Amino acid sequence: MEKFDELKARLAEISDLVRAAAVLGWDQQTYMPPGGTAARSEQLATLSKLAHQHFISDEIGDLLEASAQETEGMDYGSDEASLVRVTRRDYQKARRVPSELVAELARVTTLATETWTQARAQANFSLFAPHLERIVALEIRLAEALGYDERIYDALLEQYEPEMKTAQVEAIFAEIKPQLVQLAREIAEHQDRVDDAVLHRSYDEQAQWDFGVEIIKSFGFDFQRGRQDRSAHPFTTGFSPDDVRITTRFESDFLSPALFGTFHECGHALYEQGVSPALARTPLDGGTSLGLHESQSRLWENLVGRSRGFWTFFYPRLQERFPRQLADTDLESFYKAVNRVQPSLIRVEADEVTYNLHIMLRFDLENALLEGKLRVKELPQAWNAKVEEYLGLTPPDDTQGVLQDIHWSGGMLGYFPTYALGNLISVQLWERIRQDISDLPAQIESGHFEALRAWLREKVHQHGRKFTPVELLQRVSGSALQAEPYLTYIQSKFSDIYDL
Amino acid sequence: MEKFDELKARLAEISDLVRAAAVLGWDQQTYMPPGGTAARSEQLATLSKLAHQHFISDEIGDLLEASAQETEGMDYGSDEASLVRVTRRDYQKARRVPSELVAELARVTTLATETWTQARAQANFSLFAPHLERIVALEIRLAEALGYDERIYDALLEQYEPEMKTAQVEAIFAEIKPQLVQLAREIAEHQDRVDDAVLHRSYDEQAQWDFGVEIIKSFGFDFQRGRQDRSAHPFTTGFSPDDVRITTRFESDFLSPALFGTFHECGHALYEQGVSPALARTPLDGGTSLGLHESQSRLWENLVGRSRGFWTFFYPRLQERFPRQLADTDLESFYKAVNRVQPSLIRVEADEVTYNLHIMLRFDLENALLEGKLRVKELPQAWNAKVEEYLGLTPPDDTQGVLQDIHWSGGMLGYFPTYALGNLISVQLWERIRQDISDLPAQIESGHFEALRAWLREKVHQHGRKFTPVELLQRVSGSALQAEPYLTYIQSKFSDIYDL
Repeated sequence: MEKFDELKARLAEISDLVRAAAVLGWDQQTYMPPGGTAARSEQLATLSKLAHQHFISDEIGDLLEASAQETEGMDYGSDEASLVRVTRRDYQKARRVPSELVAELARVTTLATETWTQARAQANFSLFAPHLERIVALEIRLAEALGYDERIYDALLEQYEPEMKTAQVEAIFAEIKPQLVQLAREIAEHQDRVDDAVLHRSYDEQAQWDFGVEIIKSFGFDFQRGRQDRSAHPFTTGFSPDDVRITTRFESDFLSPALFGTFHECGHALYEQGVSPALARTPLDGGTSLGLHESQSRLWENLVGRSRGFWTFFYPRLQERFPRQLADTDLESFYKAVNRVQPSLIRVEADEVTYNLHIMLRFDLENALLEGKLRVKELPQAWNAKVEEYLGLTPPDDTQGVLQDIHWSGGMLGYFPTYALGNLISVQLWERIRQDISDLPAQIESGHFEALRAWLREKVHQHGRKFTPVELLQRVSGSALQAEPYLTYIQSKFSDIYDL
Repeated sequence: MEKFDELKARLAEISDLVRAAAVLGWDQQTYMPPGGTAARSEQLATLSKLAHQHFISDEIGDLLEASAQETEGMDYGSDEASLVRVTRRDYQKARRVPSELVAELARVTTLATETWTQARAQANFSLFAPHLERIVALEIRLAEALGYDERIYDALLEQYEPEMKTAQVEAIFAEIKPQLVQLAREIAEHQDRVDDAVLHRSYDEQAQWDFGVEIIKSFGFDFQRGRQDRSAHPFTTGFSPDDVRITTRFESDFLSPALFGTFHECGHALYEQGVSPALARTPLDGGTSLGLHESQSRLWENLVGRSRGFWTFFYPRLQERFPRQLADTDLESFYKAVNRVQPSLIRVEADEVTYNLHIMLRFDLENALLEGKLRVKELPQAWNAKVEEYLGLTPPDDTQGVLQDIHWSGGMLGYFPTYALGNLISVQLWERIRQDISDLPAQIESGHFEALRAWLREKVHQHGRKFTPVELLQRVSGSALQAEPYLTYIQSKFSDIYDL
């Protein structure tokens, strides 16, 4: 295994560069002063370029071929065979992209993210537009370099969700959309049955922080191997399985963003903290796809955190922290409040029924941009039209519209569909978990998540990127991606809440 | 200038790697969770090794020679000629060091720093000792690789203070030591003339933070291009002239550490923020030596921050923030309190008279370690003996003794003398500033530091590493390093305070 060991040593250094870039990215969004942007963009460009150059070198190619021979006959799921198999796939893709494009993307997106922050604060899309134009042009170059058979979108989607095709996403969206729209309509007729005013009272931010920490500790977030900070847009990042960071945003007059945002990011973090230590500093360290990653965050946020059983345990604890604000609200009312369905403007705060509609509109717009059917400067108008079409609302400004998400400033076109896939996968996994852990509801009602976390760790987390999302889902749930469990869950949960 | 431009582009990427490592180092000391240490040590090792490998490549050597021809005849102080001249010196030195040693030092010191933190918290030197043994062995390897004519210490000192020799340091210490010891003795006979109990009252940490920020803003620290955080050991680091970070530590029952620590780090930060933007991403970005750097921090900490004029302006403002604690103390008493002379155990909290004695003892011990006259395990005893000899005190434990400083855990042997040199240089510069800005005392008494900052920026900061410390001091003060201005200042200031 001489060549394999050499390969691993080389890949470890490349991983170090990638993780160092992640530290710089985290710092940029948490603590970096405004003046740091220009230097940071160059630093990130250099780190990205070097990581890419080192990875696509002929030496790595030779080591990969030699390692493939050395590991021939080993178990498909062994660390060694998986490393060679997955890295070869990564290598073939990475070789298609010029290092200069990687550097340029890192540079441009670092500057764009800073400008997006300002544009968002000022509700001024025109500030951001020239950056986004450059990014779309670079993403098109990237897609052409990566190559695709049918749709340009395929090439970008593949980066986040291996093996997924644009046409598949369209088919799934076509399947779920009518039912979601129909359900939202029925609920709209009975708006009076759920009131969430209680969530919009005044909640001290430090107390929100403390309550969130109490909960994610019970979920299993390990603060010895991670931390929480504030950022404009919540995210999770990892510098190793032993250093995983989440961020949260707080609103003093709205409980949901910090609360469910923290659960959500914790779900991502548990995935990262749960990867087998043996995979650290290899390309296998991390989630196997963004859809799978999102299934973990949505599972903790929604299937656990927005369940009746969860609040049976935690609502009394929340009341202890906020006695004045919650005195007049009983458990059932609170449970319904956190599940109120209401078409709204901000994706990350959307309810479970309308959430995927937010994704569909972004998916449409991204396809149009990449296929040249929409220009960046037409985006705010197109966005608003889509919000009208999908949600029946009109954003009052671009901060609550086209500027709300960080993704495009980071060059992450093709990413959004993974949120919707994650919703579906989370329910598909949940079905299996319910079979495997028979007393799960009772455990949740008593604030115990050890068995759930252990299940996820064993079945999903520890494998890192060893299996493709398709392979993993098949192994774990016994079938390919299905929309049906998700639709059944949504239908049943909200029929109950709204007494339909 | 084709080759020169190519050289600059290559050096910019190396600078990016070095600065990225600095971000990781800052994070390690401010926010990194304990679990992050192992991965961080590998990341830092990789970044350091890559930066070193890229720098010592033959290509850089060829580009340097070609650039030397292209820039021949240009002004000695021009950006271009300086870049080639200084980088050639750096290059010749760096070529002597194996990249593996650079990586090993980064790896070992990252782990050692984490262990030092624990050892210090537990006052347990034996935890730290095996790490320090490795570090001393690596530093000896480094010194042998770098080479030296007379003393092994020369090789390490040179890294922080170019052109300075161990023998020179010894001569300077021999000159100042008797006078400092004599002065401290005279003061000891009149201890009753100054009381600093007022500094040891209870001071809210957030209010300390706010007051420090108010002051360093008036000094000129630019929070758009920098920030302040907490760390166990205060330090300053920069990721570009536009992103310079300081850290401070706070004690709720002792005002001095946060107060003067903040001024001190601000002095370093003004140097980094003041480097010409044209030198960003080149080897010229940064201070020309640690002695010069320390002259800036000590100037703001002591010559400004511990002056009567400074407190004439700021003491009423401090009283507004802490009315209860300061009601019974007048300006003159407070001024004397912050200048109280008292042999003490902690270097960073030492008064101006005894401070250099702390340095001398570390200098002795480092020399003994490097010359094989002292073993690491004998260090606590040797430390305590030196503290007895120089300061007449016995540390009650190693936290207040041999474990107090972070430097050795970071592999910074040869660094400590620069603190003493900085003290001397600060006064030598101050003499010149007093001549150039005739109404400086009046400006300070009214809280105005613009002219002082502008002077320092023009004469010192903007040049970065263009001139060696010897060249810079000669240009700015008109003479080589002298101890006499420093001794005169100390003698005069403290004779006044203690009425000797």
